[in-house]
Amino acid sequence: MKLYIAPYAPNPRRVIMFIAEKSISSIETVSINLQEGQHRTDAFKAKSPLSQIPVLELDDGRCLTESRAICTYIEALIPDPNLMGVDAFERAHIEMWDRRMELLFSVPLMMWVRHGNPMLAAVERNQTAEVASFNQGQAMRMAKWLNSELASREWIAGDRFTIADITAVCGVDFAKMNRWRPGDDLPHLKRWRDAIATRAAGQVAA
Amino acid sequence: MKLYIAPYAPNPRRVIMFIAEKSISSIETVSINLQEGQHRTDAFKAKSPLSQIPVLELDDGRCLTESRAICTYIEALIPDPNLMGVDAFERAHIEMWDRRMELLFSVPLMMWVRHGNPMLAAVERNQTAEVASFNQGQAMRMAKWLNSELASREWIAGDRFTIADITAVCGVDFAKMNRWRPGDDLPHLKRWRDAIATRAAGQVAA
Repeated sequence: MKLYIAPYAPNPRRVIMFIAEKSISSIETVSINLQEGQHRTDAFKAKSPLSQIPVLELDDGRCLTESRAICTYIEALIPDPNLMGVDAFERAHIEMWDRRMELLFSVPLMMWVRHGNPMLAAVERNQTAEVASFNQGQAMRMAKWLNSELASREWIAGDRFTIADITAVCGVDFAKMNRWRPGDDLPHLKRWRDAIATRAAGQVAA
Repeated sequence: MKLYIAPYAPNPRRVIMFIAEKSISSIETVSINLQEGQHRTDAFKAKSPLSQIPVLELDDGRCLTESRAICTYIEALIPDPNLMGVDAFERAHIEMWDRRMELLFSVPLMMWVRHGNPMLAAVERNQTAEVASFNQGQAMRMAKWLNSELASREWIAGDRFTIADITAVCGVDFAKMNRWRPGDDLPHLKRWRDAIATRAAGQVAA
């Protein structure tokens, strides 16, 4: 299998962290240069019609896009350590937290960077200041709420590390581009971020 | 089990359509009045800390939010007819299409309505015209692309009806509030919408 990624992009990083946490070394990674528009070539669109990264290409040529769908496939192939739940309720509970982290926290953080950071103007093509500030507001409200949630448990979905932690930290670390990171005003969120750094998944460069 | 919904809201409708397609009649639905702010009461926040609907409350009191996570739980309890995939690849493939429909099509359609329709000003509280037009552009590009995809197959994720069709149609039907629906300029998307109307899931009011 081959995983097509782009360096520094947060969605491929979710899959790379997922693979690192499972200690999988058999998936080849191939870098796509977004600045040169390699994701907009016909050859790449044959794998990913909407030019999305990451893409997982199976040995038989079938391709999967969407970071979470790729993780679902890898979780089925290599179930241990489990990152997405072991029974019906836990799978749904972790998916709930993963979606909260993605839709209400990481996506707003990423949209804030994509629409607010001049370095990304060439990639984004249609930067809109109001989209940046709207998403910044949403992300900062979620950071505060998440900090209060993490006062009473170690990880986002409960007492063990899951895909929800990976999803959240990829958004948080991407926001470094806008000079934001959890500080002393968000002590539980800061403790959580520091704890990830000690894990296998935490060794993947942001 | 109890499912907390709001009439006319697209995310609860996803779960209601999912349940209808499986012919499940054992889940009680409870309506929450958003205009009266019933989702912001302490009693409701004990079930859904971010005031989100829908919520599935289990008989033991545990609660799940996030429409797709609720569907994951229901799919595990009542697997037939299958709507989310039967093996590792199909589950990932359907999740890929479901995410494309949600993140790139239905969410933009919903954000266009939520930020562009004066009738929703009271619920949204922070309507932003640029957020509406940005999302309208994204949604209309996706409608055109999806129309071309549906030229060669019957349903969104392949040759059978899945959760991806439900996710897409809930966004499409919500956009009626902004007087948009697939017309003769999008014939394959229109054919797909008309086909849903003939199914059990299609009997759920938009």
